[in-house]
Amino acid sequence: MSSQPGLPTDPLPGAMRGVIAPLLTPFTPDGAPDRDAFTAFASNLLDDGCTGLAPFGTTSEANSLTLDERRHLLEALIDSAGIAPGRLMPGTGHCALGDAVTLTRHAADLGVTAALVLPPFYYKGVSDDGLFAFFSGLIEGVGERGFGFYLYHIPQVSQVPISLDLLERLCARYPNAIRGVKDSSGDWDNTRAMITGFRHLHIFSGSELTLLDNLRAGGAGCISATANVNAKALRAVLDAFDGGAANVDDLQEAASQTRRTIQSAPVIPLLKEIVARRTGHADWASVRPPLVGLEAAVTQAAFARLEGQLDLAPAI
Amino acid sequence: MSSQPGLPTDPLPGAMRGVIAPLLTPFTPDGAPDRDAFTAFASNLLDDGCTGLAPFGTTSEANSLTLDERRHLLEALIDSAGIAPGRLMPGTGHCALGDAVTLTRHAADLGVTAALVLPPFYYKGVSDDGLFAFFSGLIEGVGERGFGFYLYHIPQVSQVPISLDLLERLCARYPNAIRGVKDSSGDWDNTRAMITGFRHLHIFSGSELTLLDNLRAGGAGCISATANVNAKALRAVLDAFDGGAANVDDLQEAASQTRRTIQSAPVIPLLKEIVARRTGHADWASVRPPLVGLEAAVTQAAFARLEGQLDLAPAI
Repeated sequence: MSSQPGLPTDPLPGAMRGVIAPLLTPFTPDGAPDRDAFTAFASNLLDDGCTGLAPFGTTSEANSLTLDERRHLLEALIDSAGIAPGRLMPGTGHCALGDAVTLTRHAADLGVTAALVLPPFYYKGVSDDGLFAFFSGLIEGVGERGFGFYLYHIPQVSQVPISLDLLERLCARYPNAIRGVKDSSGDWDNTRAMITGFRHLHIFSGSELTLLDNLRAGGAGCISATANVNAKALRAVLDAFDGGAANVDDLQEAASQTRRTIQSAPVIPLLKEIVARRTGHADWASVRPPLVGLEAAVTQAAFARLEGQLDLAPAI
Repeated sequence: MSSQPGLPTDPLPGAMRGVIAPLLTPFTPDGAPDRDAFTAFASNLLDDGCTGLAPFGTTSEANSLTLDERRHLLEALIDSAGIAPGRLMPGTGHCALGDAVTLTRHAADLGVTAALVLPPFYYKGVSDDGLFAFFSGLIEGVGERGFGFYLYHIPQVSQVPISLDLLERLCARYPNAIRGVKDSSGDWDNTRAMITGFRHLHIFSGSELTLLDNLRAGGAGCISATANVNAKALRAVLDAFDGGAANVDDLQEAASQTRRTIQSAPVIPLLKEIVARRTGHADWASVRPPLVGLEAAVTQAAFARLEGQLDLAPAI
C-alpha cells in the first residue's frame, strides 16, 4: 500500500488499490462458462501483476450470465484456483434487489471482503432517493459487518449514474460500508471530483487512460478492461509512480497508446480474440448474445494495428 | 375473436387480442410480494373486462422481482386464482439468456401458451445480429412446439429497440413462434408500420391512447399500464369497435383523457395509489427501489384531477 499524499493512510479492511482486471469470461463450445479456462486465466493475471481481480463486470458479460453461473465461477476462483478472497472484487449488482443481496451474501460467505455494484439499470430517469433506497436495502440486506461496497458508475451503459450527491448521502449513512467507486464514465472531471471530494474513498478510473492522473490526484488506480491483456504495462505505471521513477509518463503514454488501439474495435470481442490467439484456444473468442464476435478481417486488422504495442505471440 | 378486415382470421394457438393489463405487483409491509392481493387483483381485472393479463411487465416492476418471486407469482395466478393459462402473457425476458429460458420454460410447463419478452437490456448499441442470436437462443432453448413469443419494444426504457428488420428476420426464421409485438414506443408511425407490414402478427399498442387507431388499422389491441385501473372503459372501446357502435370515438376520447391525466404523475406509483384507495389497503401503494412512492400532496392533486374521469371510491 502506498503512502502517497492524498491516499487513504489507514485503509479500511477490504480496501483495494492498484491495477484490477474485470475478468473476461470464457465459454465452452456448447456455450457454458469454461471454469478451467477461467481460473487459469485469473491466476495468470495475478502473476502478470494485477493487484486484484473484478470478476462479473461489464467486460465479463456478467449480465449475460445466470445467477447460478456467477456463483459457481466465483467459487471456482477461490476453491479451485486458490485465489485469496481478499483480492477479489466481484460484481454483485442486479436489477432485482433480492438477487443482488443473494449474490453479495454468497460472496461474503466465501470470504470476499468487497463487491462492485451496479445500480438497478432497467428503469431510466430514476431519482437519487430511489437509488439510495436500493443501495440501503443492499447494504442492510447483506448485513455483514466489515463488508465493503464499491459503486459502479458507467452511465453510458447503465444509463443510471451514481451522482456525487448520492455518493455523499450513502457515505454519510454507511461510512464503513461504502469503500469507493469505479468511474467508467470516461469523464476525468467527474473522477477527479470524486477523488478530491471523497478522500477517504478508493476511486478507480475505469480505464488506464487516466491511471497516472488518477494516482497523482490521490486515487486508487484503475479497473480496466484492457488489464485483461496488458496487465504488465499497467502495473509498470503503478510501480513507477509508487517508486517515483522518472519514466512514469513514458510508461503511461505507452499503455494509453495500446488502449487507444484496442478501443478502435469492439473491445470485449477483441480482448477475447487476443486471449484466444495467445492461448491457442479458439473457444476463448466466443461471446454471448447480445454481443457478437468479430469478423476475421476485423480481428486481423486490429492485430496488425497492435503490432509493436502488445505481445500477441502464442504463449505455448 | 373478431373477424374485422385486416385481423388475422386464423389465429395461431396462444394468440391474444383485446385489452390486456400488465399486472401491478403488490407488496406486503415487509417488502415481499403479496400473493393474495395479487391473485385477487388479477381476478378482478378479468371480471372488469380485460381479455388477458400480462404479469411481469414494466408496470409490474418485473425487473425488481427475483427469479423465484416471478415463478411463485405466476404459479399463484394459475394454481390459486384458477386463471386459465391461455389468458396469461407473462414477461419472461431477462438480460441473461439462460435465465430467460428458465422463466419461459417454467411458464410453458404451467400451460401458458405465450410470453412477452424484453430484449437483453444491459449493453447498449447492440446489433440486430446480436439480438437475433439472443431471441433464437431463447426460442430454441425453450423448444416448446406451439409456444408463442411477443416481442417487447419499449426503447425509451430498455434502450434496445426491436427494429422492423429484426422482426422480419425473426418471423422468417421462426414463423410459428413469433406471434406479435407490444409496441410501447408511443410512436404511432412505428406501430402502424408493424401492423401493416406484419399482417399475420398481433401488434399491441403499449397505451390505450392509440387503441382505436390500432384496432382500425387491424392491430390486436393494447397492453396498457392504465388497464390496471380503467379496464372497463378500455373494454368498452373494444366492444364498441367490434360491434360497430356509433359512439366508439367518444369512448376512445374518454379513455384517452383519463390516460393523459394519469400520465401527469409518475404512472406506476399513481396506479398503485389508486388501487390502495379503492381496496382500502394502504400497502398496495408500496413500490420497490429504484422506484419511489408519491408524496401525499402529489397523490391528492392527481386524485383531484381524476375526479369525474375515474371511480376512486373504496369498493368496500
